[in-house]
Formats: sequence, structure tokens, C-alpha cells
Amino acid sequence: MTNLKACIVAVGSEMLTPFRVDTNSLVVTERLNAIGYDVRLKAVVGDDIAELAGVLASALTWADALVVTGGLGPTDDDITRGAIAQVLQTPLDVHEHVVERIRERFARRGMEMPEINRRQAMAPRGATLLDNPNGTAPGLWIERGPTAIVVLPGPPREMTPMFDAVVRDRLAARSGGAGLFRRVVKVTGRSESDVDTHAQPVYGRWTTAPVPIATTILAVLGQIELHLTARAENRAEGEAALDAAVEELKAVLGSAVYSTDGRNLDVVVGDLLREKHFTVAVAESCTGGLLTSRLTDVPGSSAYLERGFICYSNRSKIELLGVPDVVLAEHGAVSDPVAQAMAAGARARAGTTVGMGVTGIAGPGGGTPGKPVGTVSIAVIVDGTTRVRTFQFVGGREQVKFQASQAALNMLRLILENNDQRRPR
Amino acid sequence: MTNLKACIVAVGSEMLTPFRVDTNSLVVTERLNAIGYDVRLKAVVGDDIAELAGVLASALTWADALVVTGGLGPTDDDITRGAIAQVLQTPLDVHEHVVERIRERFARRGMEMPEINRRQAMAPRGATLLDNPNGTAPGLWIERGPTAIVVLPGPPREMTPMFDAVVRDRLAARSGGAGLFRRVVKVTGRSESDVDTHAQPVYGRWTTAPVPIATTILAVLGQIELHLTARAENRAEGEAALDAAVEELKAVLGSAVYSTDGRNLDVVVGDLLREKHFTVAVAESCTGGLLTSRLTDVPGSSAYLERGFICYSNRSKIELLGVPDVVLAEHGAVSDPVAQAMAAGARARAGTTVGMGVTGIAGPGGGTPGKPVGTVSIAVIVDGTTRVRTFQFVGGREQVKFQASQAALNMLRLILENNDQRRPR
Repeated sequence: MTNLKACIVAVGSEMLTPFRVDTNSLVVTERLNAIGYDVRLKAVVGDDIAELAGVLASALTWADALVVTGGLGPTDDDITRGAIAQVLQTPLDVHEHVVERIRERFARRGMEMPEINRRQAMAPRGATLLDNPNGTAPGLWIERGPTAIVVLPGPPREMTPMFDAVVRDRLAARSGGAGLFRRVVKVTGRSESDVDTHAQPVYGRWTTAPVPIATTILAVLGQIELHLTARAENRAEGEAALDAAVEELKAVLGSAVYSTDGRNLDVVVGDLLREKHFTVAVAESCTGGLLTSRLTDVPGSSAYLERGFICYSNRSKIELLGVPDVVLAEHGAVSDPVAQAMAAGARARAGTTVGMGVTGIAGPGGGTPGKPVGTVSIAVIVDGTTRVRTFQFVGGREQVKFQASQAALNMLRLILENNDQRRPR
Repeated sequence: MTNLKACIVAVGSEMLTPFRVDTNSLVVTERLNAIGYDVRLKAVVGDDIAELAGVLASALTWADALVVTGGLGPTDDDITRGAIAQVLQTPLDVHEHVVERIRERFARRGMEMPEINRRQAMAPRGATLLDNPNGTAPGLWIERGPTAIVVLPGPPREMTPMFDAVVRDRLAARSGGAGLFRRVVKVTGRSESDVDTHAQPVYGRWTTAPVPIATTILAVLGQIELHLTARAENRAEGEAALDAAVEELKAVLGSAVYSTDGRNLDVVVGDLLREKHFTVAVAESCTGGLLTSRLTDVPGSSAYLERGFICYSNRSKIELLGVPDVVLAEHGAVSDPVAQAMAAGARARAGTTVGMGVTGIAGPGGGTPGKPVGTVSIAVIVDGTTRVRTFQFVGGREQVKFQASQAALNMLRLILENNDQRRPR
């Protein structure tokens, strides 16, 4: 099986500044992979018709699919239609029924169509116009020799629905349905090299399997992701191979695997809490609210999150959580006993099933030789179970905060996954 | 004055997946702009020597600077050296002194250099090797007709220091020093169209000024950014024109402008609080800790942030903040009076200068016809000044949370900027 070759071109000078990247191509790549196209080249071109024409002409020499996004607006800056006509050496025709549709769109909002918008109804001769339900610019489908040329508007809320509604099936019909199928396995609490040492002997065998699977390891802040890509003749075959591969990884990585279905850790923890009818109170010092904010990013989290205490000062730890003066004095604010007293105090005062306490040094100031920047003590209490641990994170202030919130969520997850108690509603 | 044309090529198959974008090009673009190069094309190519050679050959026909990042590792996948030699039709030579340097680098870590790493000491004949203090792969500088070819390793921590140390001056010498200079004006609390209506008559004149300035408006969540780009013969001239332009914008946009020096709103607010020796207590419902977390993203925020209360339940609003039952019952949890009682309760219980209260409906559930999803009431109390306002935000849960935190920070900023009180230390 060979995959077809695709080229993605994004048009727009704003994506050639230091401030903007093209992200449409990520969506298009995912869609193309699933129907058997391998993206071999991505380009970003400004609003210059000769330069765009040069890139398009070059791609036409090798690409099976050429997907162009952007440059379909009504102004002189919008050069995509003209560049394609130039490369294909065909004239641009005005489609009057499209002009009428654009005119009606303006009329529905009580506006008159500016004459300039007639440009959006122009298309290279021979092109099929693709309906755009969310905007004025239609897309284009053009077949030229072995290449299918697809032109879509730049705004993602117009581009993505059009790809899914009218482009995907047309391109899939040309590729015969073989495709690339992907799965992401998310791991936390172990280092990249540790994960790779255990996983490599497993995924190393997959590349020569009947349904070959390629594996990429990405270390992102606070977690490791293993991206699996299977090449298979059809979706059923690809998904079956991925299911088996994921089980093999779970066997060697154990409970460090927290998600194989795309969910983030805050969602995994939220689902466990909801399922068990547990409630949570959080006491945070160095994370400054980030842990509670992540818990509340999940829709419906008011079902389990009762309250949070952000206690930056020692005084607030004593007043709000009842952390004893003597514990603070004896062990210091960043210590296992203080984290545990914070978790216990939050839980007792809120009357929840779960209490969490986080105290640490996010930096850049505040470190000492014994407790350097990145030292964070975390306690999680669930009914009769208490876990307390001090971590040493590396990175800047926001990285330490995030890793601490991730470690706290993971400690809670590990307790909940081993906890089959359920509260009555 | 005309700018020189640049092309940036990133090499690596991982950037052709749905998961990764090339971000090196943003750094390179910023650096190139400042020394008079306009980026006209960006490309991402996989690990295929023929495809990379095709892109490079095409860029050599028009680019004054061709910057290639990545593909300089020691394995067969690392094809950049070979592709350049192929396009320039020159052989690859091994530089033995570079082999020795790589060998020493391994030896310092107690390791023997794998033979495969000799590849990293290869360069197309005629190339100048650029020292890489942070990795094993040297960069390359090659002049070919009017084009300067720059090749740098992919990892940002190797690439960026090399560009700044050895590439920038070489490229600047070829452009004669004229450059593009940029400034970002950040605005919050007003809509994009409102900002544009007031700003367009001002920035519309700049394009034909002696030092022309181009303006782009970007609406990002919770704020509008105006990106100004001046084309000037030298930095002093460019910065002077930008200074004057920023003053003109401030005159028409007034206090909605919160930053002209790149600082984010949380940093602007933190700087104001520190300057005045004020302290803050925060009470959050729908933002779930995000507002306090943003305040504590700023290094040194423990100087002003005393504590935060995250009160999701009515019970916690009553117990922790002393919000009266009757106010909750009469006005509902999302209301101006409850926000005000939360801010007042937080401030009184923490004994701080500033109290903030946020209560709202982040969604997707919980909306009513009278108080739809996105309704958020915010109160800020600073000494004798109280501001309370109900907002209606649009977007999903995380968008509503962010916009609410942004609006709360902005209300506090506006009070502080009009407040010349200073606390004794």
C-alpha cells in the first residue's frame, strides 16, 4: 500500500509575521491522513500572485492533492483565484448564481452587497464551486491531470465544515480508502527516558507488523505522549491494530498511563469523581488557584468541586485551614506535614470526601539550599487514604505551577482508580 | 528603500503531522524583519532529500536570504546537508577538527562518540561552519550568487543563540541596515470594531508618512492588539516614529490601552499593586481559581496576593465570605449584590487593601433566559472605591472564564491608575 502525496498551502501575509502561525494545516493534515494522504510539504505564502503561482506550479508536478486555504476574500489582497487561473492558464468566469447568493446573504443582514464582492463569485474555468454555508466565499474543486486541487476559505469556522461536508469524500474516492489511523497514549509521573526504556521494546516490533504502526514520543510539560500511527487498508483494520497496541503499552507502563482516548488528566479525574459521587476541597499555596481552575475547566465540575482555599500567607494557612503554628514553625511552610494539614483542614472545613493540599516554591525567588525552587509538597486525602509526597520540579514559575497541579491530579487519580467505594447520591 | 526577500524552510517529518507546527520560523522572522528582510515564503518539508532539494532550488531563484532549520542530526533521517550539496552540485567534505570537537563533547560526558556522528562534521564544499555552543551540529553559511544560505539546527535552544551570535550580523551587512521595527499596543474592554472605528483614521495616515507604519489589528480572547510595523533606515528613526504613533493611538483610545511595551494585563496590574504597596484578596466562583492563578503567574506576587477563596457552592459563599443568605435568595448567586458581598467579605476577612469578587455562569449548563451562559458579575473594592458590573461574555467554558478574569483585572487596573494613594511599607 502506498499513500498518496499531499501539499498544503496557506495564503496570507499575516502568517509571515512573527506573531501568527498557520493552524488550518493541522486540521487538514489530520483529515488527509485518515483517508490515505501523506502530507509531504506545507507552505505559507503572502499576498503576492507571482509567488503563490510559483509554489502551486511546483506542487502540481508531484502532489496527488493540493489543498490551498485563504486568499478568497473580496479585496485586491485576495489573490488565490487569480494565481490558480494563471498556473492553469484558464480565464476566470463570474458565476452569476453565486453573485446572487452573496447578495442575498448581505440582504438578510439588511445590507447591500458591495460591488467588490462580485470577485468572490469568480472561478477558473472548469472549476466546481463548493458551497460555503458559513461565509461568502465558495470553495473550488479542480482536477488537473493526477492532481486534485482544493481551495477553501481561510477562517477555520468556514474551512473545516466545508472540508468535512464536501471535500473529504471526493478525496477519499481518489485514494481508495486506505488510510492512516492514529491514537494518543498519555502518561504522567515518569520521565521520558524511563517511558522509552520500557516502551521501545514493544513499539519497536510494530513497524514490521502486518498493519505497521509508527510511534513518536513527545515530552510535553508534566506528561509524555506516545503518538501511534497505523497504516491500514480500512478503519476497522487500523483501529483493531491500535487497540492491541495500546493494551501492550498499558501492560509495560502500568498505571502511569492515564488516558488512551484523548482525554486530559483534569477530565479523567473529573469523570472518576462524578462516577463515585465524591466531592473535593482544595488548598493551594504555590499553585495559586491553578489546580482548582483546572478542576473547574471541566463542564459539570460544580457537581464535585465544593470550594478552594488559596493560602499564600502563613496567616491564611492558619486562619482558613487550621494549620497549627507549631507545624509551620517546625517544618517550614513547604513540607509534607504542612501539605497534609492543608489537605485535612480543607476537607474538614468543607465537609468533602476529598481534600488536597499543595505548598511549594514556584520561584524565581524563595529557594534555599535545602528547599530549592521547584520543591513542592502535595497531600491528597480520600476517606481513609492519605498520600503525601514532596516533588522536585524544574523550569520557570509557570512550569512549576503546572507540573505541581498535574502531580496533584495524578495522585488523586491513582487513589480513585484503586478505590471502588461509591457514595450514595 | 526596498526590503530584501527571505525564505524560511523547516525540515522534519514531525512538523507534517496533525500535532506539531514549526515555531522556529516565528523567531527567525522577527530577527530577519529587524535587519530589513521581508519573509515571503515559509515551507515545512519532511525527511525526503529530493523534496527538500526541490524547495531549496526554487527558493534560490528569488530569495536574498534562505534560512533552513533542522535535519542536521547524525542519522539517515537528517538530510539537510545532503540536499544542499545536491542543489549546489558540490561534494560534502568531512571537517576533521569538527569531528574532534564533537568527540570532546561526548568525552566530557564520559561517553564515546558514535561513528554515526561524523556525519555532523560534513559540509558542502565552500561552506563556512558556524559554531554551535549548545549542541553537536554546527551551522552552515553559504553564499551562492545573490543568495545567502543559512543552515541552523532545529532545537530552539541551539538555533536561536546561533542566529543571534553569528548569523544576524552577517545578514545585516548584506541588507545595509534598513529594517522593520515593531510595537504592540494592547487594548481591553472594547470591541474590535469599536477600536477600529477610532483607530483607523489615525493609522490610515501612517502608511504614507516619511517613516511608513503598517498596522494590523488582531482580536484575541479578551483583548485587541494593534501591531505596528515601521520601515526605517535605522533603529533610532524607527523607534521615534513608533513612539509618536503609540501616543496618537493612546489619544483616541484612552484608558482602554493597557500596555505598549509588551506586558500582559496580569503583569501591568501586579506592577501597579507593588508600586502602591497594596494587598489583594480574591473571591471567585465561576472563574474557579483562574483569576488568582493569573495574579500569581507574576514573579514576586506573594508581595501583594494575600489569599483567595474559591466558592463554588452557596454554602461556601456564606461560610467563607459572609455573603448574607437573604442577598443570595433575593438576587441569585450571579448578581451585582452577591459579587459585591464576595469582594467585601474577602477583603474584610483577609484585611487587605483590595477585594475582588467574581460570580457567573461559565456554562455549558446553568443558564436561564434572564441570566444566560456567559453572564458574570464582578466587583472590585479598593479602599473607598467600589466598582460593580455585570458582563455578558460569549464562547465556551474556558473562554468565559478567561474573559471574566481579564475583565476583573482590567477593572482593578482602571481603579489603580486613577488612584494615587500609596501605602506606607
